[in-house]
Amino acid sequence: MADDAARPLEGTRIGWIGTGVMGCSMAGRLHAAGARVTVHTRTPEKAAALRNFGIGWVDDPRELLATSDLVFTMVGYPADVEEVYLGERGLVPALERSEAPLLIDMTTSAPALAARVDASARERGTCALDAPVSGGDVGAREGTLSIMVGGDLDAFERARPAFEVLGRTIVRQGAAGAGQHTKMVNQTLIATNMIGMCEGLLYAERAGLDPQGVLASVGGGAAGSWSVANLAPRILRGDFAPGFFVEHFIKDLGIALDEAHRMELALPGLALAKQLYEAVRAQGHGRAGTQALYLALRQLSARSGDAER
Amino acid sequence: MADDAARPLEGTRIGWIGTGVMGCSMAGRLHAAGARVTVHTRTPEKAAALRNFGIGWVDDPRELLATSDLVFTMVGYPADVEEVYLGERGLVPALERSEAPLLIDMTTSAPALAARVDASARERGTCALDAPVSGGDVGAREGTLSIMVGGDLDAFERARPAFEVLGRTIVRQGAAGAGQHTKMVNQTLIATNMIGMCEGLLYAERAGLDPQGVLASVGGGAAGSWSVANLAPRILRGDFAPGFFVEHFIKDLGIALDEAHRMELALPGLALAKQLYEAVRAQGHGRAGTQALYLALRQLSARSGDAER
Repeated sequence: MADDAARPLEGTRIGWIGTGVMGCSMAGRLHAAGARVTVHTRTPEKAAALRNFGIGWVDDPRELLATSDLVFTMVGYPADVEEVYLGERGLVPALERSEAPLLIDMTTSAPALAARVDASARERGTCALDAPVSGGDVGAREGTLSIMVGGDLDAFERARPAFEVLGRTIVRQGAAGAGQHTKMVNQTLIATNMIGMCEGLLYAERAGLDPQGVLASVGGGAAGSWSVANLAPRILRGDFAPGFFVEHFIKDLGIALDEAHRMELALPGLALAKQLYEAVRAQGHGRAGTQALYLALRQLSARSGDAER
Repeated sequence: MADDAARPLEGTRIGWIGTGVMGCSMAGRLHAAGARVTVHTRTPEKAAALRNFGIGWVDDPRELLATSDLVFTMVGYPADVEEVYLGERGLVPALERSEAPLLIDMTTSAPALAARVDASARERGTCALDAPVSGGDVGAREGTLSIMVGGDLDAFERARPAFEVLGRTIVRQGAAGAGQHTKMVNQTLIATNMIGMCEGLLYAERAGLDPQGVLASVGGGAAGSWSVANLAPRILRGDFAPGFFVEHFIKDLGIALDEAHRMELALPGLALAKQLYEAVRAQGHGRAGTQALYLALRQLSARSGDAER
């Protein structure tokens, strides 16, 4: 392929750490856009598919530093982010001022940690962007993610061509940490809306209504939402497969509540959502999709006769 | 106008009780569609505009019975519905079997009351539909309401031409009361989503983000909803004017929770929403729009320094 428009990242050297469902699709898109991508992941088998496509591999993530213009991370929890960047064998302590790449964390993680990673990176001649995403596995595959970015403006512009391969809505929200804060707003909106969606379905069912007919009446108006349009039908089909894992959502809600606590902000809806999702996990649905909230709310009002159904 | 398509209700005699913001627009639309409309309302001044358009007026709502094919009601609270239909000077006791019109209550009211009105009407040779709506003042004016109907199927078909003048989404949800139950699902979805929307804005503001930028990032994805698209911008403009009154919403949430109690269904999100809306009213915003929930949630975490702002 010699078409420059189709390979906007030709000549860009990218290091990528973390090849879960999201990371794998995203690194693959950067490769297809012409970047020279090298990956590292804790569990090498997860990167096997990428290696088959001719994407490079390193055993020690620090090897990516000297050979990359941009280093992306997409790992699991804030503790993983901290270890990858600031740990004893982390990226930041290994940075060489002369050839330090721009660091970009796309994990959903803690705003304060993002600011700390950026500050540490600045001491070594580069900086870090926090750039969490929404849009799920489909968005990662199709390059339609919303990318919420915090950090230095010039660094944001340097990363933009890569962001444009990964996402459709790309907004710099402010200084380091602002991307993570924005993602917390996103999760706050989703969490509380999920409660209403599940409670609405449970009400409809117990009142003896046909839930499909109810959705036809209510889905197009002021009660409408992405969750009602996309997740309610899955619940009605009994499909609780993960678009987004309950246990990851609990992590996010925990971060949001920690931040709210730090900011002295009472968020009763978010707190309730977190508690209900704890119940979802306790009932064995931690690896189900977030729509499994329905199961825990149903369990809450299960009547003795319902057990045999 | 002799165009039949533009006057689908030519020859239909309609009685209309209750000419608030919604009722006034709706009765006007039926008149414009060719129906011979006669109205009654508790506060005659509210019907003045309609009378200027040549719409008839009666002082006693029972006068509508002998001269109407369909009698609609759009009043305030379940107690009003009960009085209008079943009270001492109500419609049902005054029904004459020989010329009883179809009764249609479009108020958002209690499902059990709707079933009771229908049962009483059947004893007198007719029946009643419950047909609450969503879509607000704009939907009433433009005829784009969603109409959620409970009651007899043949009666529903008889009323359908009038419903089609008033709304765009018209679904019969089941027997008498099913329309009201569906509206309760609608309000349950809205109420809990409103909490998330307001909490998301408060988080964004306290984190120092630009809320407009945040909405650009989160509004188009899994966090998206009608409320985020339509009410969040009003909140950011400081516009708390009513699309839908807080005090009416509290009524609806109370009905939904009463029904849930009767059905032995725990709805923690809805219960929290009701409590928070009680706070909105307590703080003096009962006649504001539902987006005033933001004010009460903000008050919850107001810091001593915020008072002077």
